[in-house]
Amino acid sequence: MRILIIGATGPIGRALAELLSIQHEILKAGRSHGDFRVDIRDSESVSQLFKEIGMLDAIVCAAGHVHFDPLDRMTPDKFQVGLQDKLMGQVNVVLSGQAALNDGGSFTLTSGSLSEIPIREGTGGSMADAAVEGFVRAAAIELPRGLRINAVSPTILEESMELYGHYFYGYEPVSARRVALAYARSIGGPQTGQVYRVW
Amino acid sequence: MRILIIGATGPIGRALAELLSIQHEILKAGRSHGDFRVDIRDSESVSQLFKEIGMLDAIVCAAGHVHFDPLDRMTPDKFQVGLQDKLMGQVNVVLSGQAALNDGGSFTLTSGSLSEIPIREGTGGSMADAAVEGFVRAAAIELPRGLRINAVSPTILEESMELYGHYFYGYEPVSARRVALAYARSIGGPQTGQVYRVW
Repeated sequence: MRILIIGATGPIGRALAELLSIQHEILKAGRSHGDFRVDIRDSESVSQLFKEIGMLDAIVCAAGHVHFDPLDRMTPDKFQVGLQDKLMGQVNVVLSGQAALNDGGSFTLTSGSLSEIPIREGTGGSMADAAVEGFVRAAAIELPRGLRINAVSPTILEESMELYGHYFYGYEPVSARRVALAYARSIGGPQTGQVYRVW
Repeated sequence: MRILIIGATGPIGRALAELLSIQHEILKAGRSHGDFRVDIRDSESVSQLFKEIGMLDAIVCAAGHVHFDPLDRMTPDKFQVGLQDKLMGQVNVVLSGQAALNDGGSFTLTSGSLSEIPIREGTGGSMADAAVEGFVRAAAIELPRGLRINAVSPTILEESMELYGHYFYGYEPVSARRVALAYARSIGGPQTGQVYRVW
């Protein structure tokens, strides 16, 4: 398969590229690294990416930022970070990417355990992650030509414990390698509209 | 209790006002009707409302629009309707309304069954409804002074079947009166961070 990974230099993207490249052709895109540059917040940039890249069998998005702050310091603008980046960034990829997918191809987006299990300072993340999952369930019933769409919802990564571990005290971290398997399951499997939890 | 209902002239708001007014003082707000006028999309308008209205024991938001269209006609701008109105509108109410709630007071927001069960043309609604629920779960653990927050997730109302019934073929509609009970449960009950499904 010919597979695009957006966010290929993050810990998940790297583990996934390593896993998939054993059997597949991998194209790597990112905001500041990778073979292709794209800012997923900008629908023009996303649509330009798909013009350049040609037809694909699977599109993975493992990119997207949210703003973390205590609720009493959150503002409408800070919520917009997650909404316009992690949520609408991935939606932009689906809206433009459909035409670049061969029949039966798949999207795999990234949500996160905050959609179901809140952490302190995480209202922006919980909102964006839950929205990604709602979008995936709904888009799945409308995509044409046997196209599929799923989300992977990872908890805290072993690789991210140093930076974010204090938010996840008492959580069992998962390896990026284990999270990558869930993306592979979405790409190679038969299901659509699913959220694969990795925790 | 002194209770504010935003969206008091919709079918849910009316049934809720009728139910609650037996025992409580009800203040009604809306975009174009009600004792108080507010555009929840505009955080200034929301903050002005709470300056006028004084201290409250419960705040209900049963307002918020989303855009319905087939996925292949959805655009980033059409997704913004649900994000800025039904989602951020209700978040604006929470951000500004906290200071107007007495200790132990409650917010009750409105999501909808689309968060879990998609309908055709409903990607914008599924996204916004799921995001409201994610926000509620996360805000619940950070609100101070015993403040609580829940969401009510209704399916199609009997009162809305004529307008929207074609999206919900084979669904069992629920009465606004039955949905109103879930808001009452949130206002009077002990729980926080919950989504009360009515379907």
